[in-house]
Amino acid sequence: MSRLDSFISRLEAQRACLDHIATAIAGIAGPVLEVGLGNGRTYDHLRSLLPGRGILVFDRQIDAHPDCVPDDSHLFLGDLFDRLPDAIARLGRTAVLIHSDIGTGDPARNARIATALAPLYAQLLAPGGVVASDQEMPAAAWTEMSLPDGVPPGRYFLYRAR
Amino acid sequence: MSRLDSFISRLEAQRACLDHIATAIAGIAGPVLEVGLGNGRTYDHLRSLLPGRGILVFDRQIDAHPDCVPDDSHLFLGDLFDRLPDAIARLGRTAVLIHSDIGTGDPARNARIATALAPLYAQLLAPGGVVASDQEMPAAAWTEMSLPDGVPPGRYFLYRAR
Repeated sequence: MSRLDSFISRLEAQRACLDHIATAIAGIAGPVLEVGLGNGRTYDHLRSLLPGRGILVFDRQIDAHPDCVPDDSHLFLGDLFDRLPDAIARLGRTAVLIHSDIGTGDPARNARIATALAPLYAQLLAPGGVVASDQEMPAAAWTEMSLPDGVPPGRYFLYRAR
Repeated sequence: MSRLDSFISRLEAQRACLDHIATAIAGIAGPVLEVGLGNGRTYDHLRSLLPGRGILVFDRQIDAHPDCVPDDSHLFLGDLFDRLPDAIARLGRTAVLIHSDIGTGDPARNARIATALAPLYAQLLAPGGVVASDQEMPAAAWTEMSLPDGVPPGRYFLYRAR
């Protein structure tokens, strides 16, 4: 499998997971959190999948296509561990989806960050809400969801809050 | 179609075209030219598709994954319009495939560059060799090839030298 094959496969898995979750959360009211805006492609996908939902975006800085940058009232700019507590104070447990795409090339660092993020996400996720993460992120209050067809195990991780 | 959908579709089209051409050039000896290394994903795909072929890479600077950087003897670093004449002097009309992925966000600039590149590529392409370009690039000595199934018109352009 070439790096091109592997990249396409990762993007297809990401899209399949987001499409799958959009259905899973259809009956629950609340905002969506996009953690890691990057180039804004998944933000754009989420807003096309979930029209009318507020989407709150977290990133250290904005590098996205100008069409894919939310207004200031939907942005939490800066270090994630500084800004998630602000979001918890503002939103409480109301988020129906947290899409967390924060992986770097360093697996040990990714695992440490994911472990530190889980308890913060737990304070934001509404009952029945879903975390879709590029990193494994177990939490006592969450149940792992099965992946959609065609997504290989370990490619993405889906958790649902009880 | 979201930006995620559109990005996946572009990458799938790129892969389909490269796979299609690998078959089309199977019977012709000669090197492959990768114009625009970028992150090295298509370079990696080309070397997995075409083992044993020399792949010569052109880019302004190296931003690729270290695994996807060829040795110095296969690199033409610097401005393309400075380095293509060096390649013409060294290789003549021996290339079996020129993969040209040079598009920027500026369509008018892309068109100007593609028009300027075509006569240089024509001096590198062996009879029967193929140009795969992300830009339209007509040349008198080339015949446009049909795209593989599933690739929408205008997404990629394939030309074969007579």
